[in-house]
Amino acid sequence: MRVRHKPWAKSKLNQHSNLVVQSPKDHNGEWHDVFHREAPLHVEIGTGKGRFLTGMAKKYPDVNFVGIELHESVIVTALQRCLDEGLDNVRLINEDARGLTEFFAEDEVDALYLNFCDPWPKNRHEKRRLTYSAFLAQYEYVLKKGGILNFKTDNQGLFEYSLESFSKYGFILQNISLDLHHAKMKDNVVTEYEEKFAEKGQKIYRCEAISSE
Amino acid sequence: MRVRHKPWAKSKLNQHSNLVVQSPKDHNGEWHDVFHREAPLHVEIGTGKGRFLTGMAKKYPDVNFVGIELHESVIVTALQRCLDEGLDNVRLINEDARGLTEFFAEDEVDALYLNFCDPWPKNRHEKRRLTYSAFLAQYEYVLKKGGILNFKTDNQGLFEYSLESFSKYGFILQNISLDLHHAKMKDNVVTEYEEKFAEKGQKIYRCEAISSE
Repeated sequence: MRVRHKPWAKSKLNQHSNLVVQSPKDHNGEWHDVFHREAPLHVEIGTGKGRFLTGMAKKYPDVNFVGIELHESVIVTALQRCLDEGLDNVRLINEDARGLTEFFAEDEVDALYLNFCDPWPKNRHEKRRLTYSAFLAQYEYVLKKGGILNFKTDNQGLFEYSLESFSKYGFILQNISLDLHHAKMKDNVVTEYEEKFAEKGQKIYRCEAISSE
Repeated sequence: MRVRHKPWAKSKLNQHSNLVVQSPKDHNGEWHDVFHREAPLHVEIGTGKGRFLTGMAKKYPDVNFVGIELHESVIVTALQRCLDEGLDNVRLINEDARGLTEFFAEDEVDALYLNFCDPWPKNRHEKRRLTYSAFLAQYEYVLKKGGILNFKTDNQGLFEYSLESFSKYGFILQNISLDLHHAKMKDNVVTEYEEKFAEKGQKIYRCEAISSE
């Protein structure tokens, strides 16, 4: 994502510390306290400008959503969306998603979303792909047994790689679509990227990988 | 496949009982005797006219190949191909592939090939798809642990279904291609169907499912 620098972003994020959680590690295992209620916890890795996250939060008011995004000039748009929509079931984390297992306790998360992550097509960059086994280990750790990793991409090579990576790691695959926008789209919430790619006629791939441990 | 009736097919098959194995059940667990040698055993389910099978047999002379095909008017072409090529590492079974677990013993087979089987797109026909769980149970039974089920199709819906079915059953997926003819095609041997579909510009999907038991 091309990021336009917004010098005012940091202070705006700080002003809304009720939505943009400071020191997320401090809430490890206790995210229901952050939301002041017991509800399923869904986490998006790389929330970007928050279109998907806020769309899901509106659609599923009985779920607690957390979006993680490193770039403050991007996540600030997600924050504005939450404010505009008056959503009280969303929290944001302005940190690197590599901290996932520090932010959340083992088996704390019901579902993860990984949408249009960088494909890193070169073989030598395999370890940077967010579906590389080392990342899957993190996802499995925070996911409950039977929890679902929801994955979407427009990149064929990344999708092939990811299916194999999920399978090899022990996730069970379900609801695979090799052309999401021409399938029966039950309740698909689109991301910014997805809309752009789909408008160009590119296929969108998706699947769910179920944690078996 | 449209099958032109060939009244002479049956007698021709009977003439070549060295290649077209009569009473395959009698060789359960002892196929190396049929080939007069110890070698990996690869079996194609639905061999059709045998282009893939004979292509593989030429390419891999150190493998024993068995092709199963119900229709005698079709398998007779596969027989002719074997005769023309002078292949001594191929045998044919002119029976319904549902007999798989009677023809072969547990863990006797190193690899299976399932190419362009009928997609049976309607939900109510799921049980007829050759990647339905009841068939996977048969494949897993005859395959060695670590044995590979090689699957190709031009049908997107069947491929999506099959990936999920393999995964749910406990097979591990590898070498997935969502566009085989535009991928680095290492050693792909094409079938009659495949050539026809690929010439029309249709995508060919393939994967390998590894038996874990």
